[in-house]
Amino acid sequence: MRAVDIIAKKRDGEELSAEEIEFFIQGYTSEDIPDYQAAAWCMAVQLKGMTPAETTELTLSMARSGQQIDLSDVAPLIADKHSTGGVGDKVTLALGPLVAASGQPVGKMSGRGLGFSGGTLDKLESIPGWTAEISIPQFKEQIRRVGLVIAGQTADLAPADKKLYSLRDVTATVPSLPLIASSIMSKKIAAGANVILLDVKVGDGAFMQTMDDATALAEMMVAIGRLAGRTVAARVTDMNQPLGLAIGNALEVKEAIATLKGRGPADFTELILAEAAHLLHLCHITDSLEAAQALVRQKIADGSALRKFADFVAAQGGDPHVVDDPDGVLPSAPVVIPLRSPHSGTLSAVRARAFGMTSVALGGGRAQKDDKVDPSVGIVLQAKIGDYVKQGQPLCTIHARTQADANMAAAYLLPAYDWSPTPVTPPILIKKTFDAH
Amino acid sequence: MRAVDIIAKKRDGEELSAEEIEFFIQGYTSEDIPDYQAAAWCMAVQLKGMTPAETTELTLSMARSGQQIDLSDVAPLIADKHSTGGVGDKVTLALGPLVAASGQPVGKMSGRGLGFSGGTLDKLESIPGWTAEISIPQFKEQIRRVGLVIAGQTADLAPADKKLYSLRDVTATVPSLPLIASSIMSKKIAAGANVILLDVKVGDGAFMQTMDDATALAEMMVAIGRLAGRTVAARVTDMNQPLGLAIGNALEVKEAIATLKGRGPADFTELILAEAAHLLHLCHITDSLEAAQALVRQKIADGSALRKFADFVAAQGGDPHVVDDPDGVLPSAPVVIPLRSPHSGTLSAVRARAFGMTSVALGGGRAQKDDKVDPSVGIVLQAKIGDYVKQGQPLCTIHARTQADANMAAAYLLPAYDWSPTPVTPPILIKKTFDAH
Repeated sequence: MRAVDIIAKKRDGEELSAEEIEFFIQGYTSEDIPDYQAAAWCMAVQLKGMTPAETTELTLSMARSGQQIDLSDVAPLIADKHSTGGVGDKVTLALGPLVAASGQPVGKMSGRGLGFSGGTLDKLESIPGWTAEISIPQFKEQIRRVGLVIAGQTADLAPADKKLYSLRDVTATVPSLPLIASSIMSKKIAAGANVILLDVKVGDGAFMQTMDDATALAEMMVAIGRLAGRTVAARVTDMNQPLGLAIGNALEVKEAIATLKGRGPADFTELILAEAAHLLHLCHITDSLEAAQALVRQKIADGSALRKFADFVAAQGGDPHVVDDPDGVLPSAPVVIPLRSPHSGTLSAVRARAFGMTSVALGGGRAQKDDKVDPSVGIVLQAKIGDYVKQGQPLCTIHARTQADANMAAAYLLPAYDWSPTPVTPPILIKKTFDAH
Repeated sequence: MRAVDIIAKKRDGEELSAEEIEFFIQGYTSEDIPDYQAAAWCMAVQLKGMTPAETTELTLSMARSGQQIDLSDVAPLIADKHSTGGVGDKVTLALGPLVAASGQPVGKMSGRGLGFSGGTLDKLESIPGWTAEISIPQFKEQIRRVGLVIAGQTADLAPADKKLYSLRDVTATVPSLPLIASSIMSKKIAAGANVILLDVKVGDGAFMQTMDDATALAEMMVAIGRLAGRTVAARVTDMNQPLGLAIGNALEVKEAIATLKGRGPADFTELILAEAAHLLHLCHITDSLEAAQALVRQKIADGSALRKFADFVAAQGGDPHVVDDPDGVLPSAPVVIPLRSPHSGTLSAVRARAFGMTSVALGGGRAQKDDKVDPSVGIVLQAKIGDYVKQGQPLCTIHARTQADANMAAAYLLPAYDWSPTPVTPPILIKKTFDAH
């Protein structure tokens, strides 16, 4: 088998066999196949696509390229949830404890934020002492004892994906749906989860900008799950405006804690209740989706989801008092100023991407891979699409390190809003659901 | 400007600007742009194509990437002729002296053979003493004094093309017409010729397998010439059977010499007379194409084309007696055996590629870049398409180093023939002509 023949076959739009994909991916991992051949192949995949069978083989080959974590000795089913990334997306922080408190173990490896999209690890690291650096034995022990673990990816998890991901970034092959889908799924599969709920964000503040792309990606990942013998369901959810009200690491942790106390924003609460119930039902914790919906509401009402969050934080070295006194435990920004509405009217746009970019500019995210993140800064919305605001009323509150930063943020954010003289219907949050087959 | 944005633009099928192409090509030459970005870009070009304007800018950028030879101090016009490569293609050997003897200086840089296609330098090197290693001052001096020079490419001629050519070979991007056209034309333009006649071979023994591809390539190169301010004409000629009768280095030199004596095979003679006349007319040596046709016939009849060949050989260190006693001066193979026809019938196929491959297998060409070439071996056809052969009559003569090699060649060649019980019309040699605009 020769790499150049495999590239030529994909160039000509033919379907690659499992053996050809395995040869290419393991050869690339071992550096027998050089970057330039992988780059040409990625561009051919980008422009000619892949069938579901090819995408599944690619996913499995990348999962096999490094360590594969076997969690079958820990629990019969391990749940995971993955979001394609958005602005204000703190779902994992609230969903994990809620599902774990409902009796379903959750084990998850997560990433850091880059660009306008935040990262779960960055958010959790705003809790003093909390660490994502956990060995595999610790990972397993914590699932058994606490029922919830969120760790950083080990270096050897799907190394082929890590190499291809870096290469795609500099060869204009990032937008390929089969490459995106296999990248996400290879890490999920290598990390050992067998029930996976995917949240594909769509809109201005997401990587998928159109419903067509988001739908195709969701369907593709569900198909990979089916072909790879995993239970995978997906939702396409709105990311035209930020999710919930808080954007920024410590600010989002506070919002997640408030939500676990039953005092979260309506849209965010709706989403985590729905996703938690869906995941529990997929894991056969309840007989019906309705029973799962009742169970998760109860776990919030009786405080057990909040206690699970505290136990999880403590298990990973963090200060569990964060749940009782978030303002005292979490860092806060020295400058907090409101951004006031220059007009009266109903908000018709609160563009998510601008909020993500502004959060990065305030120091809360990364423009470059090695940037340090400030946990305290960010933005808290006081109005969303469909809300009427009077001139002079605060649109949001900016949390910044300096007055100059806050002024810069205000200038960035004002163009992210549109006002309408007539009523505006808020966007539907959960746009589509793709159940596991 | 960033390389990744240029790749993305081509990935999306947009037209690149002259500045973008220049940035990419000079960056690649200087190694500021790595192989993997060039590989992704080549695949995007392969699958999305290039406009004539883009292909011309690419050609000129590659020509500018190294030394550009200025021959304007040597003669007002310098003619060149380029073939895309075929089997038995010794056109340059006869055409060069014929055009030079007719008063038009010819200065040409040529390549070596690889795969089934032979190389002009390999053929000429079968003449004892002849060398292609000529400095630029020698090159100019020889055009002035002899009117004809054929040299190896200098190392610094279009280095971007050299790098891209090697990369395309291993990234399945060889078949891209804009990349093929710009590769050929960049070297022609950097080498200083201003009137270029292109011979695009089509068929079984050529890189272009279909008339559509050959026509597109010919049109593209003529368009590049027009946009780049050069006089470029092209012909598409048949390469389903070998050109002339001889295949193999010394054997082809003998055939070229015989042709300059007026005793060449009909098809080969027809081609070089037509191409020489066309080139002379393009260079305004004669007022009409008819006058040019008469002139070249005269230059063969009066022996001046043959004398020009002898002068040219001597100028580059070769033995000029080769024209008087080719059999004595040129090396010959120890084993010469006929391949006899197993059937009676009219030949309907004499597949060129099989002859090219067999010549390589006999030692007359290169399977790998660094293989040494044996000048003596090859094949001489005794019948071509349309000829009636009786059972037992020789189809061709095999010139080999050993009897075993000759037997192997016979076994390879027999399936290259087809016989028909009914008459067969020989293929038309010159299929299309594209004149300079």
